[in-house]
Amino acid sequence: MGRWDPDAGGRLQQAAMALYLERGYQDVTVAEIAASVGLTKRTFFRYFADKREVLFAGAQGFQDGVVAAVLDAAGDVPPIDVVVTALADVGAQLAQYGKELARQRRELIASSADLQERELIKTASLTRAVAEALRHRGADALPASLTAHAGVGAFMTAYDRWIDSSAAADFPALVHQCLDELRRAICAVGT
Amino acid sequence: MGRWDPDAGGRLQQAAMALYLERGYQDVTVAEIAASVGLTKRTFFRYFADKREVLFAGAQGFQDGVVAAVLDAAGDVPPIDVVVTALADVGAQLAQYGKELARQRRELIASSADLQERELIKTASLTRAVAEALRHRGADALPASLTAHAGVGAFMTAYDRWIDSSAAADFPALVHQCLDELRRAICAVGT
Repeated sequence: MGRWDPDAGGRLQQAAMALYLERGYQDVTVAEIAASVGLTKRTFFRYFADKREVLFAGAQGFQDGVVAAVLDAAGDVPPIDVVVTALADVGAQLAQYGKELARQRRELIASSADLQERELIKTASLTRAVAEALRHRGADALPASLTAHAGVGAFMTAYDRWIDSSAAADFPALVHQCLDELRRAICAVGT
Repeated sequence: MGRWDPDAGGRLQQAAMALYLERGYQDVTVAEIAASVGLTKRTFFRYFADKREVLFAGAQGFQDGVVAAVLDAAGDVPPIDVVVTALADVGAQLAQYGKELARQRRELIASSADLQERELIKTASLTRAVAEALRHRGADALPASLTAHAGVGAFMTAYDRWIDSSAAADFPALVHQCLDELRRAICAVGT
């Protein structure tokens, strides 16, 4: 194999996932991941900052896609619908990688406090970026932040539900359903 | 000073905060914190698991208080109002420690990725505990989780707002206002 390897990143990801699942996330080293696909540690670090990042490689692209969709949405759509539609549509592309991979990844993350931390950080970053995009559309800081939190919360809940759902479940529809559930839960004015 | 020191935990906390602010969180060691109040590293670790925990010492007590308040609330109050009232009332006790301390703590947390991670973990733990308490009251898993996320989100936003507010601001009122804002942001049904 030549030095130029257009899919090294993807092969490293698959190899890492397989090794993590087989032997447990804690016990696998970067050198082992690289060696298992005939690459060096140095090559690994050209693609990923560390052992954790392999499992979050799509996060920045997802966030950028959601932000672009929020900024592109028609001006007269209410912010919460802009956010939920963006998350549903860009999330549908993630869902194409398949439920089995998503389920394995969820299991891995649940197995490690380190990975749970990273997941929380990615979610917080996504929420901040969505709030920022809403402010670019003219929303005030507070409603932008609350709307971003609510939308990302509905999205995360839907993603989890999608992993546990039957084959026919439509990802965007699940996200919109979670928003409807959230509205049922908080919109009736209390005592 | 005798070996028995009923307020060692509190003194360690104050000392840690002062040193973190003076020299930066990263550059202060546990040994230095302990030495600055005439205690040993070993004593420090009797009170706190690590350097980060000093800044989150009240988190478990706060969470336990909120859970107790959710479980004790009258059965006919809507879940979101149960949650927001619990967070507002137990949060008012936190607010008594004063705005200056809270502002310094927020600044410290913002200065360190480590501390931000710990803050996210504490918030996730509080959200899970509140959802669990709602399930004990009979709510289904999904609305319990969405309600907990919404309530804790309103609380965190209010806490931030309270730090930046004038002296007269009433903490519980701010939490309820943030819920009202969230309702304004998401309850109008979209297109």
